[in-house]
Amino acid sequence: MINVSIQFTESGQPKYMQLFDYLKKLIAEGQLKTGEKLPAIRSFAEMLGVNNVTVINAYKQLENNKYITAKKGSGYYVSGSKLHEEELFSSSDIGISDKTSIINFASATPHPSIFPIESFKECINEVIERDKGFAFGYQDSKGFKPLRKSLLTYLNNKYSIKMENEDNIQIVSGSQQGIDLIGKVLINSGDYVITENPTYDGAIAVFKSRGARVVRVNLEQDGIDLIDLEKKIRICKPKLIYVMTSFQNPTTISYSTNKLKDLLALARKYNTYIVEDDSMSDLCYENKRLETLKALDTKNEYVLYLKSFSKILMPGLRVGCMVIPDLLISDFTKIKHASDISSSGLIQRSLERYFETGKWDEHQNYMREIYKGKYEFMLSRLEKLSSYGIKYNKPNGGLYFWIRVPKYMSAREIYDECKAKGLLLIPSSIFYDINNENRDNYIRLSFASSDIEQIREGMTILEKCLAENQKCTK
Amino acid sequence: MINVSIQFTESGQPKYMQLFDYLKKLIAEGQLKTGEKLPAIRSFAEMLGVNNVTVINAYKQLENNKYITAKKGSGYYVSGSKLHEEELFSSSDIGISDKTSIINFASATPHPSIFPIESFKECINEVIERDKGFAFGYQDSKGFKPLRKSLLTYLNNKYSIKMENEDNIQIVSGSQQGIDLIGKVLINSGDYVITENPTYDGAIAVFKSRGARVVRVNLEQDGIDLIDLEKKIRICKPKLIYVMTSFQNPTTISYSTNKLKDLLALARKYNTYIVEDDSMSDLCYENKRLETLKALDTKNEYVLYLKSFSKILMPGLRVGCMVIPDLLISDFTKIKHASDISSSGLIQRSLERYFETGKWDEHQNYMREIYKGKYEFMLSRLEKLSSYGIKYNKPNGGLYFWIRVPKYMSAREIYDECKAKGLLLIPSSIFYDINNENRDNYIRLSFASSDIEQIREGMTILEKCLAENQKCTK
Repeated sequence: MINVSIQFTESGQPKYMQLFDYLKKLIAEGQLKTGEKLPAIRSFAEMLGVNNVTVINAYKQLENNKYITAKKGSGYYVSGSKLHEEELFSSSDIGISDKTSIINFASATPHPSIFPIESFKECINEVIERDKGFAFGYQDSKGFKPLRKSLLTYLNNKYSIKMENEDNIQIVSGSQQGIDLIGKVLINSGDYVITENPTYDGAIAVFKSRGARVVRVNLEQDGIDLIDLEKKIRICKPKLIYVMTSFQNPTTISYSTNKLKDLLALARKYNTYIVEDDSMSDLCYENKRLETLKALDTKNEYVLYLKSFSKILMPGLRVGCMVIPDLLISDFTKIKHASDISSSGLIQRSLERYFETGKWDEHQNYMREIYKGKYEFMLSRLEKLSSYGIKYNKPNGGLYFWIRVPKYMSAREIYDECKAKGLLLIPSSIFYDINNENRDNYIRLSFASSDIEQIREGMTILEKCLAENQKCTK
Repeated sequence: MINVSIQFTESGQPKYMQLFDYLKKLIAEGQLKTGEKLPAIRSFAEMLGVNNVTVINAYKQLENNKYITAKKGSGYYVSGSKLHEEELFSSSDIGISDKTSIINFASATPHPSIFPIESFKECINEVIERDKGFAFGYQDSKGFKPLRKSLLTYLNNKYSIKMENEDNIQIVSGSQQGIDLIGKVLINSGDYVITENPTYDGAIAVFKSRGARVVRVNLEQDGIDLIDLEKKIRICKPKLIYVMTSFQNPTTISYSTNKLKDLLALARKYNTYIVEDDSMSDLCYENKRLETLKALDTKNEYVLYLKSFSKILMPGLRVGCMVIPDLLISDFTKIKHASDISSSGLIQRSLERYFETGKWDEHQNYMREIYKGKYEFMLSRLEKLSSYGIKYNKPNGGLYFWIRVPKYMSAREIYDECKAKGLLLIPSSIFYDINNENRDNYIRLSFASSDIEQIREGMTILEKCLAENQKCTK
């Protein structure tokens, strides 16, 4: 039994809130430890001289805030504090910092100053002129049909992704919503999901919120470890496998053609869906054909392909698209409907204009040139830091570098120190699960939202931090 | 064992799809009946001379499409066919008909021809001029802060809904998403949810997709039956109670002040959250103060208040707001983030201009006058149909009438016959659960998206159908 010495006050704050605050403090201070059982409701209420309901409410609030976990028929237990830290700290929170004085190597989206505002504004006004009120009415839950037709042509021409008609395309409010819808259609509580290791934390958040058990498979230089993957598929019978095949987030790894083929063969062999989250394949800085797993899935059977427009165009549009297997089409329409009826009609119609008038292609080429210049500049600065013992790939595409810091350094400490000096980056803990040995070994640096001057300045800050960490250990 | 005589062809369609189609047909034709067990995978595969995987895949597709249900460790069973019909047929599908030649008494949103396009377009262009790229960047997951501040003032002035600051306001991509987020925050698989009976099917869809068990409580003339509600709260310990207190969908009932107070007292007594879905309270055609449950919840403890702008402004904006209890604020920010990062920044910023420049108030008054005229006209036509034995309330607000057809008539048949004659309406089956005795007794007529001429024409069609049904039974 814990040693409780709470004094309820007549402050106007309800008693259960006072008890909630008090217990929260005990947990934070470590007086109530991870895994420890909380007192039974009735006896605790008696001891404190309060109603059962007061204790119930306090526990409920602790549970809502993830301080404690209920085990059915057994009681309440203090949650792991690491878990709590994990949840408070996610890649996108870091990326969306409002502080403009800070150099941002965390965000992987372009800076608003280079958005194609004027040309998109033209599209918006054209659409309002043309469609009047219908631009603001409900849309088909699948998405605005002409936009889906444009994307059909685009995906076919650029990616060799084939489909009979636009029914396989589902418009989503950004690819995060795509992942959310996939979770709703394919995952029930207790189901298994396999992801790459490390992987995007925003996908993990969705899978966990569906009650999925997430199993991770390590990445090799040319994609996921297929031997381990097959072993885990046999054991877990996963509902889906979540991968990023081009300039993976965060490792920057791209899959080889052979690996793509073998991965699809596994999907076929075990009749498992694969989610291919593609926000990066447009951003290849060599003259190479864009390769996706979806292009190999010629009968639209196994791959759910997610395409984001955020990295090239503007993240605030909140429109992306999916290509879904034939058999899942109607499920997705229903789930999209139950989730938010449809995505913004105005934005969908404007985006269709943007594609049809050739603006997308033009802007994509422009952005690729811009990013390529920044990529090369950051790479040149990185090469100067090699004496500090850091290691990284040269992806020649995408929006970041994934940097292994020397064994004796802590990625989290480098993150903290850089932040104190005005540089945001992302430490690897976010992309790994709690027990992974690499959790504190990497940092992710994105050049997406900084200009050349900021990259120079940011790399100087990083160098200082690396130098200081090196000195400390000498 | 079923009698199977499938001939696999070399049509290029995979075998499992051929088997899927074949079994689907058997179910549709009633040769496989509700509750019947499907053959075990291995023996069925042997019998058909195919791989186990072929049968597994066919069953999986049947399951995905809700034709069959898996029971753990037991096998696959044919689902209830009524359930299947239910899922294929939802209020919003009917409402979003694209066929313009049809008179639409189903849709409860204004017709695009009366949307305030010009004034909203002004706001959009102002915002793009002012904010440039930032109008298209990521937004705070809670929502654009100045919009939340505007709504804080608005909700306080118009509804006496008080809160300390805008942190209690969560912007959502339409109120359907609000319900979806509530489901994610409050409901886990197996939890109980209480709703009014009848209720909005789009909310039920969300609760069920979270694995909730839905319990319904009948409505009385002044709101939910509190005695039955309390009984069910005691038994089920629900995670939330979902209500519409103003011009309820579909019954048009509004809660009395006393009932609102008693309902909140119950929430307090049993420490239960109440979701108040409010899309209608603005649309009162008398000079009355707008009453909401949320206004009584002065400490922001029990009521999650959902406000839609779709009925007054434009449904395609996909922006609504919620007022959430203090203790749930951070949960909602996280869940919104995992669902779609944030709602469209451009639309949020434009809506903020729309409120701040007084356009909302102006347009609301305009819409109320328009709707009031249509309400009165539809009512006058209804009164002429009284000889057919129909019954209805006069809500003096909202967007529809809820009409009880004579006992010997079938609402579903009236729906079918009206549809054949070019009039869409909504039959009551959508709003009730399968076993409810009133399931086939009501129709919902909305005057939202029709003009006076269309209402006249639609009511003539309805009269014909009522007359024909009357004759048939004489």
